[in-house]
Order: sequence, then structure tokens, then C-alpha cells
Amino acid sequence: MKQINIAILGCGVVGTGVAKLLMEKQPLLESKIGASLNLKYVVDLDTKTDRGIRFKDGVFISDATKAIDDPTVDIIVELIGGKGVAKDFILRALKNKKHVVTANKALIAEFGNDIVKIAAEHNSDFGFEASVGGCMPVIKTIRESLVANRINSITGILNGTCNYILTKISNEGCLFDVALKEAQAKGYAEADPFLDVEGHDSAHKLAILASLAYGMRINIKDIHVEGISKITPVDIEFAKDFGYTIKLLAISKNNTDKVEARVHPTMIPTVHPLAHVNGSMNALTINADATGETMLYGAGAGMMPTASAVLSDIADIARNIMVNQNLNSDSKPVTRIPILGFQDSNVRQISIMPITEINTCYYIRLAAADRPGVLSKITGILGNCGISIQSVHQKGRQANGPVPVFMITHRAVERDVQQALKEISELDAIPENPVVIRIEEDITT
Amino acid sequence: MKQINIAILGCGVVGTGVAKLLMEKQPLLESKIGASLNLKYVVDLDTKTDRGIRFKDGVFISDATKAIDDPTVDIIVELIGGKGVAKDFILRALKNKKHVVTANKALIAEFGNDIVKIAAEHNSDFGFEASVGGCMPVIKTIRESLVANRINSITGILNGTCNYILTKISNEGCLFDVALKEAQAKGYAEADPFLDVEGHDSAHKLAILASLAYGMRINIKDIHVEGISKITPVDIEFAKDFGYTIKLLAISKNNTDKVEARVHPTMIPTVHPLAHVNGSMNALTINADATGETMLYGAGAGMMPTASAVLSDIADIARNIMVNQNLNSDSKPVTRIPILGFQDSNVRQISIMPITEINTCYYIRLAAADRPGVLSKITGILGNCGISIQSVHQKGRQANGPVPVFMITHRAVERDVQQALKEISELDAIPENPVVIRIEEDITT
Repeated sequence: MKQINIAILGCGVVGTGVAKLLMEKQPLLESKIGASLNLKYVVDLDTKTDRGIRFKDGVFISDATKAIDDPTVDIIVELIGGKGVAKDFILRALKNKKHVVTANKALIAEFGNDIVKIAAEHNSDFGFEASVGGCMPVIKTIRESLVANRINSITGILNGTCNYILTKISNEGCLFDVALKEAQAKGYAEADPFLDVEGHDSAHKLAILASLAYGMRINIKDIHVEGISKITPVDIEFAKDFGYTIKLLAISKNNTDKVEARVHPTMIPTVHPLAHVNGSMNALTINADATGETMLYGAGAGMMPTASAVLSDIADIARNIMVNQNLNSDSKPVTRIPILGFQDSNVRQISIMPITEINTCYYIRLAAADRPGVLSKITGILGNCGISIQSVHQKGRQANGPVPVFMITHRAVERDVQQALKEISELDAIPENPVVIRIEEDITT
Repeated sequence: MKQINIAILGCGVVGTGVAKLLMEKQPLLESKIGASLNLKYVVDLDTKTDRGIRFKDGVFISDATKAIDDPTVDIIVELIGGKGVAKDFILRALKNKKHVVTANKALIAEFGNDIVKIAAEHNSDFGFEASVGGCMPVIKTIRESLVANRINSITGILNGTCNYILTKISNEGCLFDVALKEAQAKGYAEADPFLDVEGHDSAHKLAILASLAYGMRINIKDIHVEGISKITPVDIEFAKDFGYTIKLLAISKNNTDKVEARVHPTMIPTVHPLAHVNGSMNALTINADATGETMLYGAGAGMMPTASAVLSDIADIARNIMVNQNLNSDSKPVTRIPILGFQDSNVRQISIMPITEINTCYYIRLAAADRPGVLSKITGILGNCGISIQSVHQKGRQANGPVPVFMITHRAVERDVQQALKEISELDAIPENPVVIRIEEDITT
């Protein structure tokens, strides 16, 4: 049986999971692939801490270049993370004509275009299913299953930490800080939760998905990002009363000329399947012209779900190696599926629509002084900016102090909404900046 | 650019959709696959009815053998349906060393083992993603994405007609016959709805999925099947009150020694994602050892969703053809992924557990004469058969006539439940046969 040699760089949580799967599932993988997947190296600077795995002698090493430069190694699995040595190792491996698998979304979102170019030059496969959505087959679905579709939009809950926190605030009415602390205690949130709760992790993932969905190069800096740290139980409660659920969504729409790509807390109708994705689970809906709306749902992170996605890439590459081994001596190895799903000459540079140009409905919450004429001023400003109001509600009026006012607008252009909010904030009667949450009505199935 | 020739057999609803996609999406498909997918023939006995497509001269023909025996045709797409000529044409195409794509679940469920054998002998690909779950990538997910997993169970809503009818009864409290008539009027249900509403269509699909999930050959006759025609608004109402939703589920569990495979109306906790799959939509949850529970959701039928799935198979095969064209002259073409996901020597013959051996909770509804001692007799019989009762409820007691009694049992073995129900039915105080619905508690995420 043909032996395919694999080296894992980085033996942290996911690296350990991949090593375990490769060793424990060797018979299963052989029975499916018809090749033996041999774990030749596991590389980590720390080879002392016990990972609960009995490696054969010479497998667990600390020198990455030994693995990357070993001519018998077929597949390098980069699970170090970050944008430092991980990038150097990936490029070196590709230049050595090795196939590479990674789960490193930040690196791909920022340097993916360079990596794709070098992989293509060396006829190497570059797998990154594990970089988005954990075990959900998001990349395979977009690139292979929906091959004959124009993808109209993708909408995802792509960060389990944020979804856990929002679910907890929604179920228990607690404050953001309390929910975050519990997420950290349970191991869902990092000690430094900035990338997660401020939406940047979701933006990295959205950049990857939009690139594949539309066959475009994306500049991550063009994606508008807002996190969940300002969401309060009051907003969630109001949303519930009006048939909405608040989720941190990564949204991309394929408009004719420009692509929308944005990450922010969003109110969605409670009847939508995404509204029922709770706790640390992830989900992605894809709206495409032939299929209509489909959804994938699953664990978006964690040792074994992520390792399972890494293994699916390894298996795909192993199958390609099995096919290519019978090539004519004068043929180059064939990359079966281009990395971005489109042949390189068809990948386009499309600009992302500035957030000020989007057109959607808005939830606005503000605290207004409790005196006659204030509401008239507020609605007057909105009207002057061309914004129609769907409904206005006062709730929780108290003897003294400002009155909470909740408004839902009809569809409006974001630029106009921002202008109106600026003017409203400058009113004497408005002591605090208004809270604004975008509403996605049209994802209703 | 390499040209790959395709012939569609059967230009009904799905065949027309596939022809449309192939023609309208030719530039998109070229930009992804790097080959030109050329629709060389569309075969149908009726070439007169307008399909809304302008075929080139000589494409739309009535003689299937012309297409099947044309040495320039690479891929035969069988969309005739049924088990008659469809089977003959598929076998003839495979023997001609052509690759075959089909959506014909009944044929695969019954004759799949023969087809797989002949395809393997001729190194032909055989694609059937469209046979289960419409546009949901169920087969690709099981065979490729979950490659490193032991699949523990699959649970699906796989028939849109039944789900539409159950959703309508649930929302409107109407009777089965009324809901069925509307499903037929809306085109969701066939004129003869037997295969759909009695569960056989779901059983065909379950046979295919279980084969792939566990690498086994299945005899469709071993799958226990019950349809939804006996479900009443009363049962759905009771289920709601107790936190359950009734769905027609296709369920398979991978027990150590025996595999469960059954189709029947099932009560599931309303918090489970499957409970929110409404109307004609389909969904499949897959519980596997590395991933935990994942779910796919999408349109399970319809012209374009099904055509999209057919196209994903065509694209996969086209990519395999592109790779194989560079083979050594002495090499056989390589089938990249074995049809059942496992190398042929690893496909097992596993027996399906008889329905009498399953162990689950039960909902029992019966009409009992309203006189002292009757409930005691009923519970006594259940107790003697080893069945513990979780709760008993009487609802809708009237001045005269029998009293409706609702019971939910703890876990019990089906054989014992059937014995108890037989004894209960024989009581003078029980004028009608009890209604029984199985409850799946453990699919809760």
C-alpha cells in the first residue's frame, strides 16, 4: 500500500487532535483512501509536555526545517497559528513542492493571495477547510457542491465565543462582562478575547468565504467590523418582543457591481434557522441562484471538530497524490481544484462596498429627556435625512431621568442614518450616544 | 480547452434543469473547472414539447442508445427515473466505460450493489449526490468531509412532501387529507403520493446514506417504514404541550453489532434544530465521533436545487477526467473516491436490527371507556410488560363516550411495547387500536 508521509507543525490543541486522529483512525483512513497516512513528524518547540500520545522514536521533534526539508514528506500541516514563523514555514514547504494544510484563518485572510500564487507556481495543493467553521464543510460546499451556482449571499455565525455570550445574555439577561467571564471560565473565550468579541475573527473567516464564493481577491481591511461588547440585555429583550434575535453575523452580498462584506451584531427574524443556532455552535447560510438557501450547522471550534476538518483536507490531498502517481513522466502534477475555486486567470479584483452605502433596516435605541417636543425633534431629523420610521416605542419610563426610546426604521442608506444619528446626538435632550443595530429582514426563508 | 461531452437521458423536470444549468452556466463552469462541458445529447421520447431551451441541431434526440454508444460521450446523466429502462441504460453506459450521474434513489436503493460492482469493474465514476436531499451536499459530506470520523448516527427529514404536510397540520390544525390535497395542489406531492407519505421515499434515501456512513451493503427490505397518514392534529397538539415536535424522520444508528435503520413519525424535542425545519425543506443531522453533531439544511427537491446537485457530480467527474488524461499509457484510470466511500474490500455486510429490538421512549394515545378501574388495567399491563410510565394525561373528557388517554413511557424495548399494546387492545374498555409514536430524546444537542 502506498505510504503518504505527513508532518504536523505545532502540537497545541488542534495539532494534538490531528495527531490523535491520524494515529487512531489509521485503519479507517486506509479502508477509505487506499493509502497509508503515516505521521512522520510532529514538530513543537515544547516536546516535553505530555500530549497523551505515544509517538514512535524520532517523530516528536523540535526542528521544523527537518520536517519541511525532508524529501519523503508529502504533506505539511501547519497548526502553529499567527503570522510569524507559520507563514515562513508554509512558503518554504510550498517551494519544496509539498502540499500544505492549515487552519490559520488570520494568515490566510491577510496573506492568502501570496500563498495561493506560490502554491499554484509549484503545483501544490493548499487546504484550509479547518480555517472557517470548524467541522462544517463550508469550503468544500462553496467550491465543489455549489459549483454551478451564482452565489448571491453568505450569512454566518462564525465565532462560537460571541454566540455563546449572546445566547447567555439572551437566556439569563446578564451583562456582557458577566457572560464573557463565564465564556472564559468554560474555555470558549481566550484570555485576550479581543479578536473574538470585537468581530475580527469573524472578519478573517468572511474574507476567506467571500473570496471563494465570488472568485475574488479581498483586502481584509475593507471589511467593516463591529463586535458585541456594547450589546445589552435591554436590546435583546426588545428584539425578542418584536420577533427578532440578535446574532453577531458575518454577511456578504454579491451585488452586481460591488460586494458587501461586513461583520456586526444583527437583528434577524426569530423564524430564521440562524436564530436557533445557540451556545458555541456555528452556522452558515448560503443563498445561491439554483439552490436557494442552504445552511450548514456544526461545532465551529474545538480540538476534534477542527481536527476532523484538517483530516478531510489531508484525505483529499492523499487522493490527489494517488491519482497523480500514475502520471506520464512529462506531465506536471495536476491541481484538481484551484485553491480559490476558480482558475487563476478568472479570479477578479472586486471592490467591497463602503459601509456607508449599504441599505438595510435599523434598530435605534436612545435615552431622551422626558419633556414635550423631544420625540418630534428626533423624528424630524430622521425625516429630513430621508429615513422613514416603521415603529417607535417607549418602554421603562421612570419618574426622573431620561426615557428609553426604541425605533425601527424602514430600509435606509447607512450614510443617511449616520448623519441623522450625529444630529440627534447633538441635541441637548439626548445625554448619551444612541445604540444602533442593523436588521436583516431579507434573509427570511 | 479540453471538451467533455455530456448526454442527459430524460428531459423531465430535473433533466430540463440540468440542461439549462449546463448551457447557461457554461462560462462559470469553464472558469472553475478549466474544461468545457458540452451538452452533446438530450434524450427523451418526447422531443416535441417545448422545454424553454434552444438546443443546437442534433442535440435533442429520442434514441438513448445513440448517446450511450457514442464513443465521444464522457458522462451519461440518467434522469428518467424508475427501475426499468433507467437501469438498463446505466449498466450499458458503465459497460461502455462512461461515467454515470443519476438522481434515481429508488434504483440505487434497490440495485445499487450491482451498479457499484459494474462501475468498479470498468473504472467508471458513478455520481448520485442528487439522489438524497436535493441540493444539500449529504453524500459529499459523509464520504469526504467526515472521512476521519466514525459516524454514530444519521437522522434526517428527507421528504419535503411529508414535512410540508406535517408543518401544515401543526400550524393550522387541519386533517391529513386536507393537508395532502394542498400539497398536491402546490405541486409538492405527486398525484399518487404513496411513496412519499408512506415513507418509502425516505427509506430509499436512508438506505443510500447508511451504506455510505458505515461502508455497508443494505437490503432495503430490512428498513422498517411507517408513514404519516395516521398522524392527527390531536397528537401534534399534545406533542407541542410537552415540548415535542412530530417529524417524519429517517433514523439510522451505528450500534456496535447491528445497525438501526427505520423511517417513522417521531417526536423530537422542540429545542432540536430539526424541529425548526418547516415546509418542504429537508435537513440531515450527522452525529460523528470527532465532529459531534452537524446539520445540513436545504431544498430537498425541485428542478434547480436537484439540478445543482447533479452538476456538482458532473464537475467532480470532469475534474477526474482532467487529471486522468495525463496518465501513463499503461495505467488504468483511477477512481478517486470509491463509490461507497470505502475501498471495495472494506465494504461490509451488516445486518439491520429488527424494529422489535429497538429501545426508545414511546407516546401512546388511546380511547378508554370512562369507568373506574380502566386506567389501572392499562397501567398494569404496561407494568407486567416491563414498561415504566413517565406521565399519563387525560384531556378532552366528554359527558359520554370514551376518554382520550395520553401516555409517555420511559425507555422500553419495542417488542415489549407491542406485546403490551396487543393486550391493551383486547380489553373491552378500549374500543380502538392505540396510536403509538416513537420519541427520540437523545438527539438533543
